[in-house]
Amino acid sequence: MYDIIKSNPIFDGVSEEQLKKIFKKIHYRIIKYSKGESVFTESNFKSSMGIILSGMVEAQKLHYSGKVIILNRMAKGEVLGISALFNNKSYYPSRLVAKNNCKILFISQEELIKIFEMDFNILQRYLSFISDKIYFLNKRIEGFTYESIYERVLCFLENERERQNNQDEIIIKYSKQELAEYLCISRASLYRVLNELAKEGLIKWEKNKIRYL
Amino acid sequence: MYDIIKSNPIFDGVSEEQLKKIFKKIHYRIIKYSKGESVFTESNFKSSMGIILSGMVEAQKLHYSGKVIILNRMAKGEVLGISALFNNKSYYPSRLVAKNNCKILFISQEELIKIFEMDFNILQRYLSFISDKIYFLNKRIEGFTYESIYERVLCFLENERERQNNQDEIIIKYSKQELAEYLCISRASLYRVLNELAKEGLIKWEKNKIRYL
Repeated sequence: MYDIIKSNPIFDGVSEEQLKKIFKKIHYRIIKYSKGESVFTESNFKSSMGIILSGMVEAQKLHYSGKVIILNRMAKGEVLGISALFNNKSYYPSRLVAKNNCKILFISQEELIKIFEMDFNILQRYLSFISDKIYFLNKRIEGFTYESIYERVLCFLENERERQNNQDEIIIKYSKQELAEYLCISRASLYRVLNELAKEGLIKWEKNKIRYL
Repeated sequence: MYDIIKSNPIFDGVSEEQLKKIFKKIHYRIIKYSKGESVFTESNFKSSMGIILSGMVEAQKLHYSGKVIILNRMAKGEVLGISALFNNKSYYPSRLVAKNNCKILFISQEELIKIFEMDFNILQRYLSFISDKIYFLNKRIEGFTYESIYERVLCFLENERERQNNQDEIIIKYSKQELAEYLCISRASLYRVLNELAKEGLIKWEKNKIRYL
């Protein structure tokens, strides 16, 4: 468990010994979800931070039309529930659904504060983590402001590359169909742009990886 | 100055006496900007939190095409610079430009940490403030996922109303032309939807105010 928690930037750099000490002092819950089960709904959620110990969780939005839109996807080691922490919102901005069987560790807001009081470094990492989150949400909004689909895809790829530490090979958590939905463009348009980018010698898409050339 | 600082949710509820005590102990800078001047650019920015003491600041993005897009607009009492706090980003996600003559108080990251150590309540309010920010950024992204322009405008109005404490009359910081840009739709489409909503008896738009009926 501790190796997964440590893989999250909030707890990265904390020694396993220190982490064990902290988790002995606080209350937390580990909950299992089956594939398709709701973790949070818009009206039914906890003021807790979740750390995904196994499986994948999808943030979805049900449109008025009944269409389900993927807003985000979180994998092992990633954190969820930030939007409902430290505020008194009556609604969660999306529905979180277990994409496959999941195990999630939940730390309530009160216990999180205890952790911050115990270790000021973790607080600083938490602040850094949410600043990053705001940074990338702003970048995602930027993507939507592009009228041309070519620019929108390019913007997504640039952001993903930055998020994955500017590596030459990045992993895409979405299938092409899902990515098209995520970017709110048609699958045909996505294929067209990816082919253009490949022809221009900029990228190569292999299964769930994109290699920058 | 203190009444403006107190109008920000991060310092809301802190007594003026306590606020004065805190600001005596920390270093801060007040900088004046003339209309059109850059506060932050993508590559030239500070790891500081700015509180707008007077004037208005616009977060803009220059598209590859040369078109300037409004990403956000911050007024007196509002905070800027959160995306570059507590992380080591080399770029700021947008350009912040003084929309008119502005006075901004800057508190560096180091001094902000001092404030948090002095008053844990302010830290909690800061955490609450950035959770709210994430909440509304997610809601804005949701808006972009709607294919129909009617739903996109409706989603914007719902979010603004929620942000302004569900009041029956809300203030819109944008002209109709600017709002159309903000929503990435044409001005004609925006007018059409607003007329539809007025016809349906849902809202009434008066100058910079929208009244819910």
